[in-house]
Amino acid sequence: MTSRSSVCLARQLHQTLRPNKTLSMPTSTSRIQTRTFVRPTAARNSPEAAKSKAIPSQQISARAVALLASIGFLSFAYALYRTPPAAFDAAAALHSEHERYTPVTILDDRDPNLPRFRMSEIRKHDGKSERPWVTHGDKVYDITDWISAHPGGPVILRAAGGAIESYWNIFTIHKNQYVYDILDQYHIGYIDQADLVDGKPPQEAIEDPFADDPIRHPDLITRTLKPRNAETPEQALSAHFITPTELFYIRNHMWVPKLTQDEAEAHVLTVELPDGTTKEYTLRDLKTKFPERKVTAVLQCSGNRRSHMSQGSGRATNGLQWESGAISNASWEGVSLADVLADAGFDASTVRDGTSEAQHVQFSGMEAYGSSIPIKKAVDPQGDVLLAYGMNGKPLPRDHGYPLRSIVPGHVAARSVKWLSHIILSDEESPSQWQRKDYKCFGPNQTKVDWEAAPAIQELPVQSAITGVKLGDWTASGQSASSNSTKPAKEVTLNGYAYSGGGRAVIRVDVSLDDGKTWTQANLLPDQAPKVDGKAWSWKQWKFNGDIPLEAFKTPEDAVPDQESDEDKNTIRRGTARRVANENAEATKTNKRCTTVAIKATDEVYNTQPESHAATWNFRGNLATAWHRVQVCTDCSPNAIIVKKKKSGDSQDGKSS
Amino acid sequence: MTSRSSVCLARQLHQTLRPNKTLSMPTSTSRIQTRTFVRPTAARNSPEAAKSKAIPSQQISARAVALLASIGFLSFAYALYRTPPAAFDAAAALHSEHERYTPVTILDDRDPNLPRFRMSEIRKHDGKSERPWVTHGDKVYDITDWISAHPGGPVILRAAGGAIESYWNIFTIHKNQYVYDILDQYHIGYIDQADLVDGKPPQEAIEDPFADDPIRHPDLITRTLKPRNAETPEQALSAHFITPTELFYIRNHMWVPKLTQDEAEAHVLTVELPDGTTKEYTLRDLKTKFPERKVTAVLQCSGNRRSHMSQGSGRATNGLQWESGAISNASWEGVSLADVLADAGFDASTVRDGTSEAQHVQFSGMEAYGSSIPIKKAVDPQGDVLLAYGMNGKPLPRDHGYPLRSIVPGHVAARSVKWLSHIILSDEESPSQWQRKDYKCFGPNQTKVDWEAAPAIQELPVQSAITGVKLGDWTASGQSASSNSTKPAKEVTLNGYAYSGGGRAVIRVDVSLDDGKTWTQANLLPDQAPKVDGKAWSWKQWKFNGDIPLEAFKTPEDAVPDQESDEDKNTIRRGTARRVANENAEATKTNKRCTTVAIKATDEVYNTQPESHAATWNFRGNLATAWHRVQVCTDCSPNAIIVKKKKSGDSQDGKSS
Repeated sequence: MTSRSSVCLARQLHQTLRPNKTLSMPTSTSRIQTRTFVRPTAARNSPEAAKSKAIPSQQISARAVALLASIGFLSFAYALYRTPPAAFDAAAALHSEHERYTPVTILDDRDPNLPRFRMSEIRKHDGKSERPWVTHGDKVYDITDWISAHPGGPVILRAAGGAIESYWNIFTIHKNQYVYDILDQYHIGYIDQADLVDGKPPQEAIEDPFADDPIRHPDLITRTLKPRNAETPEQALSAHFITPTELFYIRNHMWVPKLTQDEAEAHVLTVELPDGTTKEYTLRDLKTKFPERKVTAVLQCSGNRRSHMSQGSGRATNGLQWESGAISNASWEGVSLADVLADAGFDASTVRDGTSEAQHVQFSGMEAYGSSIPIKKAVDPQGDVLLAYGMNGKPLPRDHGYPLRSIVPGHVAARSVKWLSHIILSDEESPSQWQRKDYKCFGPNQTKVDWEAAPAIQELPVQSAITGVKLGDWTASGQSASSNSTKPAKEVTLNGYAYSGGGRAVIRVDVSLDDGKTWTQANLLPDQAPKVDGKAWSWKQWKFNGDIPLEAFKTPEDAVPDQESDEDKNTIRRGTARRVANENAEATKTNKRCTTVAIKATDEVYNTQPESHAATWNFRGNLATAWHRVQVCTDCSPNAIIVKKKKSGDSQDGKSS
Repeated sequence: MTSRSSVCLARQLHQTLRPNKTLSMPTSTSRIQTRTFVRPTAARNSPEAAKSKAIPSQQISARAVALLASIGFLSFAYALYRTPPAAFDAAAALHSEHERYTPVTILDDRDPNLPRFRMSEIRKHDGKSERPWVTHGDKVYDITDWISAHPGGPVILRAAGGAIESYWNIFTIHKNQYVYDILDQYHIGYIDQADLVDGKPPQEAIEDPFADDPIRHPDLITRTLKPRNAETPEQALSAHFITPTELFYIRNHMWVPKLTQDEAEAHVLTVELPDGTTKEYTLRDLKTKFPERKVTAVLQCSGNRRSHMSQGSGRATNGLQWESGAISNASWEGVSLADVLADAGFDASTVRDGTSEAQHVQFSGMEAYGSSIPIKKAVDPQGDVLLAYGMNGKPLPRDHGYPLRSIVPGHVAARSVKWLSHIILSDEESPSQWQRKDYKCFGPNQTKVDWEAAPAIQELPVQSAITGVKLGDWTASGQSASSNSTKPAKEVTLNGYAYSGGGRAVIRVDVSLDDGKTWTQANLLPDQAPKVDGKAWSWKQWKFNGDIPLEAFKTPEDAVPDQESDEDKNTIRRGTARRVANENAEATKTNKRCTTVAIKATDEVYNTQPESHAATWNFRGNLATAWHRVQVCTDCSPNAIIVKKKKSGDSQDGKSS
């Protein structure tokens, strides 16, 4: 990977270097972007830049400014003859065979009172240095004094020693004037002209935070590459009660932290109590000090089936356009959060008697993600919240939180925080956007919202999906095989999952073969994981075998096209609204006939799914739980139907009454 | 009341006595119903009947049978000249002025080997006697040995000393051959011919179990008189966060037990542990031994809004056709069930560690009603289950369980058992029909059901209702008062309640003025009872002020009539399907224009209400939680609309964004 990246980088550089552009002349009043064409020869750090690193911005006196200004100028002049830093050597080597460019004199009209720093120098001010720096554009900032005040905590150190842009592309909240104003206070200088390409820091200074991400299974359906978000394929949802680890859906907000096994064992979880006292546990401590617990639980993204909401309501939603695969089931091994909190000195009885100062348990991950759960859930031994280090009997894979994550059964997966490093017991919810904003729902009319007005999603509502449709033969669906009834019907097999939050078991899945006019029931498959303390943390898989009567199939002219529908020739394919429209047009030509199959689940408190996405639409596209409708088509014309006598009882297989 | 009852009874008797009917002659092979016309003169008990009471049926020897047969014959012969028992004296007095009847000789062809008993004798074998008897038809049964085996427990004693028919009319499960067969084993004789009227026991022997029911507030909307079932009027639902005690809806399955204050204080609650050991607490014990707790909680019948389901789906449902008033809110005072169970010796930690033998807590009332809740809810200190003796600061009224009831917040009211006398911790749910049958839901296609296949309703799903609609003036709904926009709109004020089970707070109520096409939000009124342990046990009242645009109002020809709809001329009236149809016909004549207002609530786990009753219809009509739709009409013709300039901001009052 590294060598390929280098080649790419070199080529990119080559592209940048080739055109011998005419430069605009600097004026004294305007800031001009300068382009530096550098000679690719051996690099050496500027001694002036090395000196400047010892001078914190806060200590710059008037004399120092004058000195730095002269250094800056010298540095600038020197740079015109300098080579690019070490990382450019590959490019240099490549270009050595080709034409060489004569350096062009470019005026550096940037504030002459501030020093210039070479990239090699900046790189030394990384997250482990005493004074971390970042760059933004061509500016250099010493963020040492900001770290403790940074709302995102020390995650800012991830960017230290390089450019902050790629992180702000992830944490877009930073692209606000007040953030620029904060950063301005820490401005100590500029990237040396010699290290700028088109006035910008070179590619290699802008680190790819995802460079170290793990390799994923090719069957995962990727929604975004960086950060990686990928859903479980339908076939796997249908086939497995426990989703195979490598096909468990991936929902990353950022990069994937990388730890060696030794680093993992030494990984520290800090628990902070309301009085500010902290206790630290290494992963090793957790494993040895507390009894291991195992919980089989579904994780479901709040955006699961969001594409169905967008398409079904005909209104766009913000966020990843998941289909039905942002949900998976696994067994999780770890220790009880309640046990750890008790050990850390938190008295759970204060929660029960109402005197607890802590109302929320905030989780923070190593990569900066954070969210929280109510303290009641955290300390309830029957809440089954784990600090998990294992998944399906093996150490957590990196994509799922290696080496440690929280698992909050029955709640939205956004509360099961991966790469867990900090737990804070607080009277407030996590201050993160993932707690205070993103994971909330509003009414269908509410597009400019008061975020405070809605609660963060915790326990999930009842949900279900069809993950497999298979059409069989045409058959006779007469009441008895002995009669000569030959009412034609198409055999159909459906399967899927149903799930409800809060440990509420799904008790019934209703199936309609005529878009909700009439209903029957699917077979609920036996639980493969027992309830824990009476709570159903796993999903319920279901199967339906039945017949779709000929009269249910309509030609596209008869049927109102369903935007969240699928086309089928004995297998299922997912359709966007556009594709369905195309298919309907196609169906018209081929005399294709379609019906809409719909399902809805009911949980043990008899909550059930809403009928339409339109009435539950919310601009964030969260909790798309309306009936899952799938268009099922057959390309047989009615005249071409071969009615086959069915063996008695066939159509009832798998049907519950 | 007593004197009036007597008069009624006398008149009834008079009616019975007047016709001098011709009797059919008995034959020796067939059992013939005989009619005895008795002379209303002073009564005296038969000495023969008095003797027979000492002979239990089980001890009847062959000789005794012969003796009893002769006694029976003597008794029969004597009876022909006898007077009716004391209770008939009033009738006798009334009739003394009128014609007197000559006794008619009637053959008693009933088994001569069994004795005849006078009613006066039978009455002595009441629930407090050593050997309780009941009658069924003209037969007498000594049920002493059956009581301990009776599935309904000692409630059978309520009928002792008289006829069992009126109880079987309540407990219809008894009208089965196997019950008749059981009863036959305890057959000891017959009601003396002298006490039969048209071959049946006299009216006064068939006790009215509801004779002692309390007097109710006239504003309650009565659905059935015996047992009394009555809903809270809408005005009270709208006006009060805490429903006034006398307007709290009444759901009785049977009669209302009557206890004096002394009897109440001495009332015994028996708690039976899984090992069979019992502990008894008088009400006095409960009040003095345990700390008092107060919980404000809604009770809602599973049938609330059942009439909406029947009308909205166009399909009949079984059960009381409640509208929106089978729900009320009250504060309840009592002691914690968890505390009492702990005191009785039950170790709640066995529930948490999964070793508890008990899985359910069965409640039984004095009048025979019974149901159960899961042990987890019962022992959870945050489950807030009370053994309540107070309601809104006063002793429980008789209709609501005096002197003691369970209160199970967040669960269907069927689990809050009134007149509580027994608690049994068991590995099984209550065997009662109210646990195993009535309170369950099935799919819309399921009419012959496997009761075991669905769980008993416990926690309730999210629900809401409109309890008030008021139309105001026509107004201009233009964007700004300064513009000359005069889009006419009708001011409307709506209010109602929203509630969800399990302590899940309602977070949003959506209002649609166009039958679900577009939505806005109602104002949620401030909570008047704090959450308890984070659980919302009370409802959320809401209010909406807005404008219905002229174009939303359709003439009945345009609009599909909504079967669950109301007509409105600035006040709301509830309509049956028939009435709405009439109103639509009426509207056509008067150019009335209507729109359908719909509401739906969302709770904190983001479950929401289903859209249509059709898809959630179940033959029992339980949990009718589909959007509440109300038809709102105006009789102004569009031409007659006076568009009034509205003061700026008026239309926004009470609207949340």
